[in-house]
Amino acid sequence: MADYQAPLRDIRFVLNEVFDAPALWASLPKVAENVDPDTAEAILEEAGKIASGVLAPLNRESDEQGSQWNDGEVTAPEGFKEAYQTIVEGGWNGLGGNPEFGGMGMPKTLVAQFEEMVQGASISFGLAPMLTAGACLAINAHASQELKEKYLPNMYSGVWSGAMDLTEPHAGTDLGIIRTKAEPNDDGSFNVTGTKIFITWGEHDMAENIIHLVLAKLPDAPKGPKGISLFLVPKFLVNEDGSLGERNTFSCGSIEKKMGIKGSATCVMNFDGARGWLVGEENKGLAAMFTMMNYERLGVGVQGIGAAEASLQNAREYALDRIQSRAPTGAQQPEKAADPIIVHPDVRRMLMTMKSYVEGGRAFSTYVAQWLDISKYAEDDERRQHAEGMVALLTPVAKAFLTDRALDACVIGQQVFGGHGFIREWGQEQLVRDCRITQIYEGANGIQALDLMGRKVVASKGKLYELFAQDIASFIEENSGDEQLRPYLEQLSAAVERLDDVTEHVIKVSAENPNEIGAASVDYTDMFGLTALAYMWAKMVKAAAEKAEGDTSGFYTGKLKTARFYFDRLLPKTVSLAESIRSGSDSMMAPTVEEI
Amino acid sequence: MADYQAPLRDIRFVLNEVFDAPALWASLPKVAENVDPDTAEAILEEAGKIASGVLAPLNRESDEQGSQWNDGEVTAPEGFKEAYQTIVEGGWNGLGGNPEFGGMGMPKTLVAQFEEMVQGASISFGLAPMLTAGACLAINAHASQELKEKYLPNMYSGVWSGAMDLTEPHAGTDLGIIRTKAEPNDDGSFNVTGTKIFITWGEHDMAENIIHLVLAKLPDAPKGPKGISLFLVPKFLVNEDGSLGERNTFSCGSIEKKMGIKGSATCVMNFDGARGWLVGEENKGLAAMFTMMNYERLGVGVQGIGAAEASLQNAREYALDRIQSRAPTGAQQPEKAADPIIVHPDVRRMLMTMKSYVEGGRAFSTYVAQWLDISKYAEDDERRQHAEGMVALLTPVAKAFLTDRALDACVIGQQVFGGHGFIREWGQEQLVRDCRITQIYEGANGIQALDLMGRKVVASKGKLYELFAQDIASFIEENSGDEQLRPYLEQLSAAVERLDDVTEHVIKVSAENPNEIGAASVDYTDMFGLTALAYMWAKMVKAAAEKAEGDTSGFYTGKLKTARFYFDRLLPKTVSLAESIRSGSDSMMAPTVEEI
Repeated sequence: MADYQAPLRDIRFVLNEVFDAPALWASLPKVAENVDPDTAEAILEEAGKIASGVLAPLNRESDEQGSQWNDGEVTAPEGFKEAYQTIVEGGWNGLGGNPEFGGMGMPKTLVAQFEEMVQGASISFGLAPMLTAGACLAINAHASQELKEKYLPNMYSGVWSGAMDLTEPHAGTDLGIIRTKAEPNDDGSFNVTGTKIFITWGEHDMAENIIHLVLAKLPDAPKGPKGISLFLVPKFLVNEDGSLGERNTFSCGSIEKKMGIKGSATCVMNFDGARGWLVGEENKGLAAMFTMMNYERLGVGVQGIGAAEASLQNAREYALDRIQSRAPTGAQQPEKAADPIIVHPDVRRMLMTMKSYVEGGRAFSTYVAQWLDISKYAEDDERRQHAEGMVALLTPVAKAFLTDRALDACVIGQQVFGGHGFIREWGQEQLVRDCRITQIYEGANGIQALDLMGRKVVASKGKLYELFAQDIASFIEENSGDEQLRPYLEQLSAAVERLDDVTEHVIKVSAENPNEIGAASVDYTDMFGLTALAYMWAKMVKAAAEKAEGDTSGFYTGKLKTARFYFDRLLPKTVSLAESIRSGSDSMMAPTVEEI
Repeated sequence: MADYQAPLRDIRFVLNEVFDAPALWASLPKVAENVDPDTAEAILEEAGKIASGVLAPLNRESDEQGSQWNDGEVTAPEGFKEAYQTIVEGGWNGLGGNPEFGGMGMPKTLVAQFEEMVQGASISFGLAPMLTAGACLAINAHASQELKEKYLPNMYSGVWSGAMDLTEPHAGTDLGIIRTKAEPNDDGSFNVTGTKIFITWGEHDMAENIIHLVLAKLPDAPKGPKGISLFLVPKFLVNEDGSLGERNTFSCGSIEKKMGIKGSATCVMNFDGARGWLVGEENKGLAAMFTMMNYERLGVGVQGIGAAEASLQNAREYALDRIQSRAPTGAQQPEKAADPIIVHPDVRRMLMTMKSYVEGGRAFSTYVAQWLDISKYAEDDERRQHAEGMVALLTPVAKAFLTDRALDACVIGQQVFGGHGFIREWGQEQLVRDCRITQIYEGANGIQALDLMGRKVVASKGKLYELFAQDIASFIEENSGDEQLRPYLEQLSAAVERLDDVTEHVIKVSAENPNEIGAASVDYTDMFGLTALAYMWAKMVKAAAEKAEGDTSGFYTGKLKTARFYFDRLLPKTVSLAESIRSGSDSMMAPTVEEI
């Protein structure tokens, strides 16, 4: 298996040449305080070293060992504790954190690149800093000043890690029916009691303390999602002077045996009157959690890109090394017993498909990160609100579409390896198993699709969609004189028009029949994502076109050729998706339970 | 996880109502000698009991235990040895075998149903009878009378099992470059020396002897695929009286750690001057192997259907049990905290997609099995040759398309489970891991696609394709007066026309540029398979339509509704595939290695 190489060249291209992130940062005073191009470059460089040099070498063995549970204690796989220490020393957990409490205040456009490299090196490990950063976000956005002061500095530094406790055995997608209870104490704290499952890194030996954010119901809370509150529940209580006090009354009952991400501990957490503190308002816990989730969801999409990039690197190396049969047009390396399999059109189709999704996905996640930065930091209300709309619309696409394509890329990469892809020692099958979770957690992709189609597109009567369509229209308009871009823009226009029509269609028919939303949602998300990636590839063509002349590295000319491949081979899927969507909900709603 | 239930109801429908297999069998005198509808029914019934009652309960634990290697000996997981004994007692290895040597002489149309049930219960286990039956086929078709008499009876009974030894570390797809050698002895035997990998059940403790069919090169054999011979190499040499003699000089060096089918042993086999006997003619070993492979390849497609059926059963049960959120049109079970997730359009989309592929795939594999039976048993030359053409054309589709859709079905089923689908105890993730191999072994699906597009469609200048197109045209013609069928026939016609056009297009462009074959092949196989399944669904509508009136079981009405779903939601994919194919090979061949 190829050693994972942080894709710094492409990250720099996307960040600087496609999106001109330095100009974005300069336009946001609060960001500009903390980052400039040199700082960003130093961060990328160092992140790449940690990913390739520290984390990636641990990944294979962590899958074999897994995290180990023993009487409530969880031991992370060999090397994880030391690697986590590296993250602590660099302050990486606080990369995007609030500087008031020790965070570095870096923009998401930059943080997302760090995340991709860490996740590309090891999803199992990467979940620890990811969950910690997510918990920090929720605390920073919703907790009292006192809680922030008490917890954030040690979480940003990473001395303490974070965990999110949402799911219960009977309640996953439908958090409205959770049973965990929080009873108020006289001192303003609460006693939290209940069982949570699927708690990533809920217990481990890498950090001194673990800060859980737990969804629970207050006594007499309203039924359903409007009766849920969010509590901060530390593993060790924290004394007034900041030192660690007694152990809180909750523990890890077991960890799951699972398909992948075996290095990470997926915990059952039993809370037995554990002391916790309310974060945000009573009964508004779900909203508080979702502030964080919007960030996390992009993070999961980025995780997918990380895995897909690793798959591409592996498959590419294998396709160059493995000799087998001759090229259809005759021997390319007659001195060898056979040609490297990269000469075969179908192997190239596989590699180019992966490359299209990985690089298109990286651009798209940076595009979404850009809106997250504007929505958080812009001082102009209109600009901020516009970005908030974009974030609301695009987040479910980034989560679902990027992870769906990431699994495709991992499975395709495995296929390039043939039988060797099925054998554990090559590591390629681990990528498939690890990547698979990204489609499931942080809101399964079907739920993301419902969010996009229902809550975002239909509920806004298309207004949120229009923001996106308008952004593409402006790009097409601005570049209408560009000869090299023209063929791409024509195809992009046609794809957007197709998406416009389908969007309008679903808004219309769902007004009569609410089932039309769920009937269209997944195909719509695919269609939306494919169109968004076409936009990204057009932007990349624009950024690469001039530099491609005289480019001997193949980087820029490769961009142009990959764009051509994407428009020729992958974008056409939108035609069929539109047809499927238009067939409506009848064919799936008509069958009775017995008929399915 | 749902207990696997052999899908006998649907198997009977396909066999008797869709294809009228009894009439087919009656038309083939050599088949009619051995089977009649009552015998067939008894076989199906018994096979179902073994699959559901004996094999399925072993499957989960076999994944945890795996086969174990110890100093050259391999121990199968707990219960496998006893289960294999059940197979021996029923003579199931010889179900389709030659009656002259103790086989039962059952037609493939029936054997395929047995295979599906066994594989649906446990792919790891099912590989043992499958490989044995495959080895018997090759021996029966190509070995001398003496070898047949010596080996076949004990292999059909299952007292001895079979293994196929093709792949070497440096030679998988490209068998022309294998290095294993066979040197002639004076007594007509050969000494075989070399290393083979990925040998399924190459060593184990379930049978008394293991008969390996090994590809090797004679001294001075021509280079490449035309210099390969096939040898029968038994684990224990067989004395003149049929008793077991000394152990042959080969052994299992290790077994692979792999993604799935962990219960089965995937062996590295080291041959060290092992005694073997030539099967078939010198240097014609590949052709002899491929006689068998045509049967095995359908078997792998059927394996996919088995896994997909198990996935459908699991996901359907979970979707009925799991309550979570409310139906979009309002609470369906207001007395509960939430509705079962089967009320949601997107969950239904997932289930109906699985059902479309599983039941359409079952019909398609039976359709191909029917051609295999005619090609083997028809006494009329023209009828037989026509069927041989169909088999040649359809086999790669059955292998690749059915297993690709099978992985889809397993992954979709896992998605229905949400987080629980990722946890080992539910068994759904095992289906994904086990099913994944079906796309890889017995010729990776990309190779199947090349076989279809290149060797079958283009090399015959479309003649083989015409056989299939003509079969559909006749069906459409015969049923043109059927009102209920009409809408389906119209869509089917359009799909065939689309496939006709693309077929003609690729034949034309590949004459100029051989890369066009590999550029089109995978998308073409998908398009072909989707069109073939549309044909199957039209046939099923015809078989179900009359009985659907007054049907209270939901079986026949369910068929009609699933057909509607298939035509509405899945067949449209062919539109995009056609467009992708027409874009040609340039976009994947233009990039240099550096540009990929």
